[in-house]
Amino acid sequence: MGNGARNGIKTVGLAPNLSSGFYGQDIISVRQFTRENLQYIFAIADEMRAVVKRVGSTDLLKGHVLACVFYEPSTRTSSSFIAAMSRLGGSVIPINEVRYSSVTKGESLPDTIRTLESYADVIVLRHPEVGASQVAAEYARKPIINAGDGVGEHPTQALLDLYTIQSELGTVDGLHVAMVGDLRYGRTVHSLARLLCQYDVQMTFVSPEVLRMPLDVLNEVKAHKRDVEETYDVHDVIASADVLYVTRVQRERFADQAQYDSVKDFYVITSELMGQAKERMIVMHPLPRVSEISYAIDNDPRAAYFRQMENGMYIRMALLAAVLGKA
Amino acid sequence: MGNGARNGIKTVGLAPNLSSGFYGQDIISVRQFTRENLQYIFAIADEMRAVVKRVGSTDLLKGHVLACVFYEPSTRTSSSFIAAMSRLGGSVIPINEVRYSSVTKGESLPDTIRTLESYADVIVLRHPEVGASQVAAEYARKPIINAGDGVGEHPTQALLDLYTIQSELGTVDGLHVAMVGDLRYGRTVHSLARLLCQYDVQMTFVSPEVLRMPLDVLNEVKAHKRDVEETYDVHDVIASADVLYVTRVQRERFADQAQYDSVKDFYVITSELMGQAKERMIVMHPLPRVSEISYAIDNDPRAAYFRQMENGMYIRMALLAAVLGKA
Amino acid sequence: MGNGARNGIKTVGLAPNLSSGFYGQDIISVRQFTRENLQYIFAIADEMRAVVKRVGSTDLLKGHVLACVFYEPSTRTSSSFIAAMSRLGGSVIPINEVRYSSVTKGESLPDTIRTLESYADVIVLRHPEVGASQVAAEYARKPIINAGDGVGEHPTQALLDLYTIQSELGTVDGLHVAMVGDLRYGRTVHSLARLLCQYDVQMTFVSPEVLRMPLDVLNEVKAHKRDVEETYDVHDVIASADVLYVTRVQRERFADQAQYDSVKDFYVITSELMGQAKERMIVMHPLPRVSEISYAIDNDPRAAYFRQMENGMYIRMALLAAVLGKA
Repeated sequence: MGNGARNGIKTVGLAPNLSSGFYGQDIISVRQFTRENLQYIFAIADEMRAVVKRVGSTDLLKGHVLACVFYEPSTRTSSSFIAAMSRLGGSVIPINEVRYSSVTKGESLPDTIRTLESYADVIVLRHPEVGASQVAAEYARKPIINAGDGVGEHPTQALLDLYTIQSELGTVDGLHVAMVGDLRYGRTVHSLARLLCQYDVQMTFVSPEVLRMPLDVLNEVKAHKRDVEETYDVHDVIASADVLYVTRVQRERFADQAQYDSVKDFYVITSELMGQAKERMIVMHPLPRVSEISYAIDNDPRAAYFRQMENGMYIRMALLAAVLGKA
Repeated sequence: MGNGARNGIKTVGLAPNLSSGFYGQDIISVRQFTRENLQYIFAIADEMRAVVKRVGSTDLLKGHVLACVFYEPSTRTSSSFIAAMSRLGGSVIPINEVRYSSVTKGESLPDTIRTLESYADVIVLRHPEVGASQVAAEYARKPIINAGDGVGEHPTQALLDLYTIQSELGTVDGLHVAMVGDLRYGRTVHSLARLLCQYDVQMTFVSPEVLRMPLDVLNEVKAHKRDVEETYDVHDVIASADVLYVTRVQRERFADQAQYDSVKDFYVITSELMGQAKERMIVMHPLPRVSEISYAIDNDPRAAYFRQMENGMYIRMALLAAVLGKA
Repeated sequence: MGNGARNGIKTVGLAPNLSSGFYGQDIISVRQFTRENLQYIFAIADEMRAVVKRVGSTDLLKGHVLACVFYEPSTRTSSSFIAAMSRLGGSVIPINEVRYSSVTKGESLPDTIRTLESYADVIVLRHPEVGASQVAAEYARKPIINAGDGVGEHPTQALLDLYTIQSELGTVDGLHVAMVGDLRYGRTVHSLARLLCQYDVQMTFVSPEVLRMPLDVLNEVKAHKRDVEETYDVHDVIASADVLYVTRVQRERFADQAQYDSVKDFYVITSELMGQAKERMIVMHPLPRVSEISYAIDNDPRAAYFRQMENGMYIRMALLAAVLGKA
């Protein structure tokens, strides 16, 4: 759905901000969200969590159909959306093999989307190319939810990250959020940093030189007059961080092994390191992890990454209900 | 299900005509359908459309299970059946990877079908070999719906095509239907031409010499004393056609590039060409399209191909309900 | 779920016996089952069958979500679980391509399981490695059902096999059960033999020398003081067997073709052979079959293998309902 008219009526243009409500809208970018929008979705997510904990599911979207279209596999994200739709009482068309099908016969993305929207009420799209969701939204009459478009955006991930911070710590304002690891290629940290600009937070970006946060994100944070610093070593932030958002540092990003070996220990979260952290703080990770967080801290109550996964389902339930006008 | 006994009791034999009703029957071939059968299914499809437009879904098939067995991928057709079953309140077992599984251990189609019918109430089968659905139907106690068997039949496609003509133009009798493009290898045009023999229509087959309509289809149309002509150039029919059914002309079908280049413009539907068409006519296409219909005409109200997709869901809802005795 | 506390509360340890009930428990091994447990599950399966025959499905697990995680394909088993959950009114997240996804990014099984249990209420796991389900159960808070772990166990298959014997013949005690074919590599016959130790049965193991039943299974049967014999030729048991459980003998298991040719006819069930069998007996097979049972006997009422498949759905319905506390 290309635009911001209310009542689910489409007009043409870039994905708009959501000031006139979510019904019938596309969810393409974190840039669409005001602080007010975020609190609205988080409040619905809170309700969704309460329903799931109490009775498992609702019939809110009974009779509605979601087409879950993944041009590249992502078990985590697709499972989360399927679970979300199921717990709302709706049905899912899982499409995981677009690559084998019409697309290989040369079909364009708009044609695929226009076909699928003739069957479904809402479309979740994962695509390897930046901007694919925006293109889909321009052609579709039904709402499109971006589930990741290449190195572009993954707005539902950013929302669940922010929601986790608020759920776990009760607030976002006043926190010190440290992002650790690969900040250059990590889509999640870019989107989260942008979202955090709407809050009164202090950010520290912790990464090796070759994996520093891109300048455009850094400048956007500064433009919002947020307190931001950069450092190479997680030890610089461990004692003061309220949120330690960890991402994977891949060996392949380094020119040689020696360079990698010289920095890798700066970015591994161990029990010893956690000994220096606050008692009330959280460790987050978008998963999958490899070795950047020691398994030994999984049972530390500050390890929030599995709760973060669960929050993803509540956020997606909230978004699905909202764009279908049932929130 | 092999035969025509009513009340869902199977007997052995070829897929029969449906004169004694749909309950418990297999849907294997367009040859099973009388004009009366077609109107019956179209009337149910109309109701299904009304239900979907009004409330999204029904509980007609609540508690019923469809096994959707695709030996070759077809996102469009499988999504349409999954959506149809979901909007009828039923459940789906999506089986898209038969090729990796028991079949590679050498299991026969009858054994696979007999296993799946022990779980499901109805089976939709897509298979690369002509006659596979008929074989499956002979062994199965539950209804089999053919979702395409190689270059053989794809009856639900033919039904949705015919239903689209009737829905869009209010009638089938008295129309001039032009089929354009690859008429030699196109399964959809063969089945549609056969179905149209039951109506008082004029047909024109528009194709390059190497892609002409097969003689057996042509002779069947003539045997029904329908008015039929053949031509190379879509310009010959554009002014008089009520239905322009377009299929893709593939370069690979031609001996050399020069031969292809000399004819390709005869089969591309452009805005300019549409300027010569009637005001009340429709352009259809089974999709996926590549370049044989210009994107510029997608917003022309005569471009019916996306509505045609949507009709596929209503036709499949009607067939599922009918063979399960719930129509 | 690692342990045997009742009320669905997890404690740590090996999958326990089910003496304190099924609610919240993992189903990892046939060793967990007492004779009393088995009768309990079989009684629920009988009820499930009655419900399906009468009305097709129930709402017992409405609002519950099953994650069906298959690290290797098994259309038969995954379809059976999907059908079981659907007929209980629940939803399924079908995950068939773990191999393409997070796992290929190096994610550990525990992380994958802990992610999926944040979306689902119960997890069915098929994995190529022995012990994978036990590992998963140790990390998961939600119940894990083992759907086959390499050459290890496949407990739901063993349960459906035993349930089929009891359903078809009214009892298990007092029967002569002959297992025929590849007894060395066949996971199903190992588990079934172990389960049968709890009953007063006579067992005969019929196999070529190179495919004899492993010594540990043989010794376990003897330790239970069950009457057990071994032979090379199915003709030795055909007249006395109440149950003929047939598995596939693969040519590849033999050193040379001559060796295979010299024995292969000992293990093919033909109509002629069935002429020597009791009037009241059953032929079983875990399927897929290749040529070890002649198609000619499919319509013999003693051919129980397709009913055996159907029983798999009822057993899985019973287990799902039981571990979710809804039986």
